[in-house]
Formats: sequence, C-alpha cells, structure tokens
Amino acid sequence: MAELRQNMATKEWVIIATERAKRPDAYIEKHKPVITETQLFYDPNCPFCPGNEETELEIERVPAHNGVWQTRVVGNKFPALSQEGIVTRTFDGVHRSITGVGYHEVVVEHPRHNTTLALMKPEEIKVYLQTLYWRGWNIQKDDRIEQVIYFKNHGSAAGASLRHPHSQIIGLPVVPNDIRRRIEEARRYFDDTGHCVYCAMLEDEVRNRVRLVALSKHFVAFVLYAAPAPFHIWIIPRKHSVSFLYSQEDELSDLSHVLRDVLRRLYVGLRDPAFNLIIRTAPAKEISNDYMHWYITIVPRLARSAGFELGSGIFINPSIPEDSAAYLRQIKL
Amino acid sequence: MAELRQNMATKEWVIIATERAKRPDAYIEKHKPVITETQLFYDPNCPFCPGNEETELEIERVPAHNGVWQTRVVGNKFPALSQEGIVTRTFDGVHRSITGVGYHEVVVEHPRHNTTLALMKPEEIKVYLQTLYWRGWNIQKDDRIEQVIYFKNHGSAAGASLRHPHSQIIGLPVVPNDIRRRIEEARRYFDDTGHCVYCAMLEDEVRNRVRLVALSKHFVAFVLYAAPAPFHIWIIPRKHSVSFLYSQEDELSDLSHVLRDVLRRLYVGLRDPAFNLIIRTAPAKEISNDYMHWYITIVPRLARSAGFELGSGIFINPSIPEDSAAYLRQIKL
Repeated sequence: MAELRQNMATKEWVIIATERAKRPDAYIEKHKPVITETQLFYDPNCPFCPGNEETELEIERVPAHNGVWQTRVVGNKFPALSQEGIVTRTFDGVHRSITGVGYHEVVVEHPRHNTTLALMKPEEIKVYLQTLYWRGWNIQKDDRIEQVIYFKNHGSAAGASLRHPHSQIIGLPVVPNDIRRRIEEARRYFDDTGHCVYCAMLEDEVRNRVRLVALSKHFVAFVLYAAPAPFHIWIIPRKHSVSFLYSQEDELSDLSHVLRDVLRRLYVGLRDPAFNLIIRTAPAKEISNDYMHWYITIVPRLARSAGFELGSGIFINPSIPEDSAAYLRQIKL
Repeated sequence: MAELRQNMATKEWVIIATERAKRPDAYIEKHKPVITETQLFYDPNCPFCPGNEETELEIERVPAHNGVWQTRVVGNKFPALSQEGIVTRTFDGVHRSITGVGYHEVVVEHPRHNTTLALMKPEEIKVYLQTLYWRGWNIQKDDRIEQVIYFKNHGSAAGASLRHPHSQIIGLPVVPNDIRRRIEEARRYFDDTGHCVYCAMLEDEVRNRVRLVALSKHFVAFVLYAAPAPFHIWIIPRKHSVSFLYSQEDELSDLSHVLRDVLRRLYVGLRDPAFNLIIRTAPAKEISNDYMHWYITIVPRLARSAGFELGSGIFINPSIPEDSAAYLRQIKL
C-alpha cells in the first residue's frame, strides 16, 4: 500500500506511490551516453566561453594562472530584477506591490563549455562555491536586499537555456512567504523540543543510514524520507549553522568533495539527468540562529508535476527513497 | 522596471518580469491548427472510448438517450492511494507517516475521443460538473477522507498521459499543508477586516475590469493580479461560498457557460495550450464558512519553473496579466 510521509521540517506531505513505483534504474536517461562528452570544448557562439565574454556585463572574475579565468560573474542579460532604483511598496487594500529592485547574476562555473560540476575537480568546485559565497556577501551588503537565492538549472528539463555550466544568484527585496513558513515550522519544533528540526533529521539519517548517499567530516547527503520527487537529495552541514555565508574555508573544501560525489553518482547512475540545485539559506536580516539550518537541495527533474500537485501542494513520488539511496550508494565512481 | 506583486489571499509574491515580458500572442502554440480536429473520433486502443470500457474498474456512468453514456467514472488503474484499509498514523519523533488510504478516480468527460471541454456544449459541461459534484459528495461521505482534490491535466506538458478528455478526483486522508496555510491567511484577513479576502479580490476585479475574462450572473473569471504564470486564471463564484459542494443546480448551469467561454478563449487565442484545471474547495471536515471561498484555477503550461521557483516559491511571470486578459477578451468565439 502507498504511504503518505511528512517532512518534519516543512510539514509537507508526499505520497510514496508504491503501486506505481519504478525501480531506481528505470529513471536512467536511456538516450544518453555515460560520461562521454560529444559536445564542444569551446563553442564560438557561447557568450560564456573564453574569448566571447561580454565584458560590459562582467561583475568579477577569479583569475587563473594560464591567463584565462576560473569562474566569472556577469549580470543576467534579461534580469528579472534591476539593481537601480528604490524599494517602493504600494498597498490599496487589495493589491500589494513592490518595485522590482534586486540582483540577478550569473556565475559561469568553468571556462570549459562541455563540462559540468560532476566532471570537475574538487578544487574547481571549491572555487565555484567560494564565488557564490563572495557574491552572496556582496549582495547582502545592499540594505535593500532581504533574501539571496542561489540556484542552478542543469539541462533543458530543469529550465537551463544555455549549456555552458553556470549558476544564478537572485537578490530579492522581500523574504519569500515560502521561507517565512519554513522558519515558522522550525520555530514550532524548537519551542516543543528545544532542538533544531534539521539537526534532528540529519542525525537520524546518519544513524539510520538507509537513505544515506554520502557522509564526510562536515556534511551529510541523503535522499529525503519524504522526498517529493525521485532522488530528491539534501546536502546539509552536520554542525548546526543557519547560513551558507557562515561557512569556513575547510567546510567549503569538504563540501566541494561531497557535492562532487553526489552529483557524480547522479551523473553516472542516471546518465546526466536534468536537475535543479538550490542553496537554502537564511534571509539577510531575519536570522533565526537557534532553529534554522542551511542546506543544499538537489532535485533531478525525473517526474512531472501536474494538477494534483498544483491543487494540493502534495507530490506523488513514484519511487522509494530508500531504494533510490541504495542505488546511488552502489554506483562505482 | 519589473514589479513584485502579492496575492492577497495566499500572500505569495510573484515577479512580473517586464524586462523579459512577451506579448500575449507570443504564447500561441504555433505548430498547432486552430479548432481543426485531426485526431480520431474513436480510438480502438483507448480504454475510455465507448466499446472499450474496462467495466471492472467502473464506479458509475451517466447514461445517454442513445444507449452510450454522457460521462463515466472509473477507478484509476494505477491509483496513488487505495480505498481498502484503515488510516494508521505513525510518528517516532522524526518520521511521520500515514497509510496510503484514499480515493483515486477518473472522470471520463465525454464519449468522443477527440473533443475537449472548450469544444463541448454547455449542457455537456454541466453534466461533467455534476459528475464531479456527485462523486465529491460520495467520497466525502467516507469518514477517512479529509480533503478531495478535483483536477484535470490537459496536454502532455500538463501531465496528461491519455488524450481522451478526462479529469481526476483524489480523496486524501489529510488536509494538505498548502490548504491549511491558505485557510490561515484568509482567517488573518477576516480578523483584520471582517471580510472574506476572496470576496474583496473578486469585487475589485468586477469593478476594475482590466483583468476580467468573463462575467456572468454567478461567476467571474479573471487573470490574477499576481499571476504566477502567463494566463493564470481564477473562476470564482460571486456569492460567498466555501465549497464547490454547496453549489446549486442553476449555479452549475451558469458555471458551465463561463468555463466553456474561458477555455474557448484559451483554445482559440493560444491554439489549444496544455493546461491544468483545479477546483480549490473546502476540506471535508474543517469548514471555515466565514472566510474561505471556493474557486477554479486554470493554469496554462506556458512557462517552465526552475531552480529559482523551487528555492523561493516565487514565480517569475514573463507576461503582463492586464495584457493577457485584454488579449483573451478580444478573441472572437
């Protein structure tokens, strides 16, 4: 029989649809070769490839010894929000609006066109994480910004329009309602128990091991007990910490290995699936040190949401989280 | 400059991305013919076509004078939840689960394979709505059920796997967290103002007219002020009413005309886009008569959600709601 499971941190229910559950290897992208790169090393039409850089949009670059660069940060060409202007709020009783002030930046993760985080060296991933980290601090310095969202869309099914490996950072003039609610739920758990709900969850996963994907000194990666989608993974610091921006250098080094490990398992195990990666971290000015905990979510785009999910907020997951984790653990890297 | 807009009922923010906004006609499905039916009237391989019915799954049918039927209700062949069993809740401090007890039914909307609600007669749509209504009452009679979700996936981009026009009904043993939160937000508005926030919104749309799509004696249809996606529409009863299941027969008659009108405008105006349709209505046993209000949402699947939406719950809408509504209003039906 199917099972409804609840994520204790977010209180979201999911349906683990055992009747229609597929085996983990049914999610392999069958049309794709495994770790064979048929794409170009350099694409003359790619705005992110070295030599084609649109320098008027450049914000910063991390230089490399060979004269190129390791990572670059550029303004989004079609930004969702604009950096100029003042945050003006209007409210007439029914309509509330705020001027679209904010940041929308693109982090080019690597000079090479045909690579991806799963294929990079840990040192390269560390530079990528440090680039996100420094941009995050820079954006949060702007007093108009309430929340920074760090995300990556990989593959067209995940919303990526360009192939060259890149991530995005959006700085918002509001704390999203979604994030406010998670804070409220975590506070409720803290009031009841005196503990951080995320710490409780991660300690359980480390002890329990059935949904574990990777474990290091500072991080644990696991398939969520109440995974809304197949192979929905959290990578979370083992030490209680409210913000990605509080990470120490050795923690980012450690994270670069864990992130690479997890993404390689997906890359090899499911043949480079489309995925979204999100860093879920504290708002800029509403810090809940006691009970919030930052983490990375990786959501392979293997199932489609439809009317039921839109209408209920409950996802139907046609896979068993424990089976997905076991499958990823046995992948040879 | 872009604008953040907030839905007063749900408190969700959206970004109306004026910088990247497309004209309404840019969303036309260019590869599709307008109201030309090239598909089969009857498909010998379709399990929903008359003559192919799998009667062991049949729950009920509304007969027709010609000996066939007008609508049929069947059990889902791969149900997300099972009707047998008891609702058992387990909780060990970190994992909460409930046995997957519930209903998962399919409503075949019409005997004809190659039709869709936009092409049906109002009388046919009324029978469809009545079928949902009666099944809803039947499912809610089961004391194990807390919430009924009525939805339709039209087109493969909206998650439909079969072409024959059909909707689905899922009866859940829990009230989804998403619905609980909407109730909380509506209660807060009611406490502040003494009014239903949905009534305030619909009265404003009737007065204001800029986002109006259709207006009848009992219903109003409009593109949401804070539309998360292009052409995101609500059809809402003008009289305050908490549940679809409190509808009177004349209201369902009226609704059948309005629903047809709205869906035809999308069908003609955007050339049969994929969409999800959801009836958002009260839980079975937690009724908030004062401040909740049922409605139908129609979400054409014209934009893809990606990492930013997953990470923030905020959608970037590359269209202007007022322009979308004006475009739909001028469509000749």
